[in-house]
Amino acid sequence: MKRRDFLQTAAITTTAMAVPSILSASVPPPTKQKPLKIGEGTTILFQGDSITDAGREKTRELPNSGSSFGGGYAFLAASSLLKNYATEGPVIYNRGISGNKVFQLADRWQKDCLDLKPDILSILIGVNDYWHMRNGQYDGTVEVYEKDFRKLLTDTRAKLPGVKLVICQPFILTGTSAVDESWVAPFAPYQAAAEKICGEFDAIWVPFQKVFDEALKHAPASWWAPDGVHPSMAGAYLMAAAWMKAVTGIQI
Amino acid sequence: MKRRDFLQTAAITTTAMAVPSILSASVPPPTKQKPLKIGEGTTILFQGDSITDAGREKTRELPNSGSSFGGGYAFLAASSLLKNYATEGPVIYNRGISGNKVFQLADRWQKDCLDLKPDILSILIGVNDYWHMRNGQYDGTVEVYEKDFRKLLTDTRAKLPGVKLVICQPFILTGTSAVDESWVAPFAPYQAAAEKICGEFDAIWVPFQKVFDEALKHAPASWWAPDGVHPSMAGAYLMAAAWMKAVTGIQI
Repeated sequence: MKRRDFLQTAAITTTAMAVPSILSASVPPPTKQKPLKIGEGTTILFQGDSITDAGREKTRELPNSGSSFGGGYAFLAASSLLKNYATEGPVIYNRGISGNKVFQLADRWQKDCLDLKPDILSILIGVNDYWHMRNGQYDGTVEVYEKDFRKLLTDTRAKLPGVKLVICQPFILTGTSAVDESWVAPFAPYQAAAEKICGEFDAIWVPFQKVFDEALKHAPASWWAPDGVHPSMAGAYLMAAAWMKAVTGIQI
Repeated sequence: MKRRDFLQTAAITTTAMAVPSILSASVPPPTKQKPLKIGEGTTILFQGDSITDAGREKTRELPNSGSSFGGGYAFLAASSLLKNYATEGPVIYNRGISGNKVFQLADRWQKDCLDLKPDILSILIGVNDYWHMRNGQYDGTVEVYEKDFRKLLTDTRAKLPGVKLVICQPFILTGTSAVDESWVAPFAPYQAAAEKICGEFDAIWVPFQKVFDEALKHAPASWWAPDGVHPSMAGAYLMAAAWMKAVTGIQI
């Protein structure tokens, strides 16, 4: 839908006022979901696929560095964490890699997770597990996704017993350049698997699909994620705001 | 100062709570300084030097694109604008270039400002006008800076009569790898010139020096800007928060 058509059919509101309501409608407050403690030197790791990667540089891969973080939600959430917890001085890494499915996280887990010894580990993975199967590049099913994801987290807990987990809901926006309605039904079980695993590991849940569904009341899907998978700057900020609210209780 | 030494000498507070107080102490509220209106399709341009550039890609230079915005305050502020004004759909560019002094903005102004027809133009410029003179690479004085800056804005107003201006205070953090106390006295007239010009053009003023001076109560200078000129992710977020508060009244 074109912006002008959208504006004609949607209630016109000032999103500056309305956007906090996106989050109040979609992200549980910290009273229901206890915010994680970020203390002196807490190490935080963002893991995932291209949405987390967002074009980050992969030679130096520095923590707390704008030059290494890419242009996505991980940069936005990490910058906010580094400002808001300046006195505590957390150490934050982004190790998302474009195209990754859950088994590809496992393949590089020693270097890109265990060696970094995160206190808080945030994972957003799943859209490629469905997408690459859909387009014939991969033969994994949702059962494989769920099994691989559970094994990855079981192994992680075994090696890092104190790690706090944040599981982000994989999401899609239909009516976009890559995603149509035919994605919804087959993708839902992947989202359900992620949520089930989140419960099993007592992880913080970040309900990105719910957040974007609310956001569609204020601007069309193309505004938030032109291809339905990769967020725009606006979509990335919305994700960072949802992440911050779910994990720390801070509104950004 | 090392973080641990700093923590021993500073009052230990949770910055998550304290950081809004940095801004309340240093950035005027919208009642004193009227927020700018961002309506349908408002075009916003960030201009400046390396602090604005922040490693952005310079081939495509797309608006509203995380891949073109670099890893600094412009990305953070623009992402927040694009989320908060989703319904209005602003168009936002970053055209900062590393190393620029005010006369170098003038040299590329047609392409990198006038052709984009911004409704809101934000400029952060001045630290190189001093720094490059200090290290012998440039022979401009503060008088040249003030004269060039005034001419740039006079020409801009002549060609874009409706443009709203945002002038950002150039800033330095002493006790860092590049900046010591000997910068303070000679740099102050550059800061004063920028503020004077801000008043002459009825621009919004973003008092970054004041913001960082407040922030130093919560973490050492190296946390906010390791070399005293280029902000860290934490420093960039603080800048974006100050910019958003001064320009829109929105707290991020």
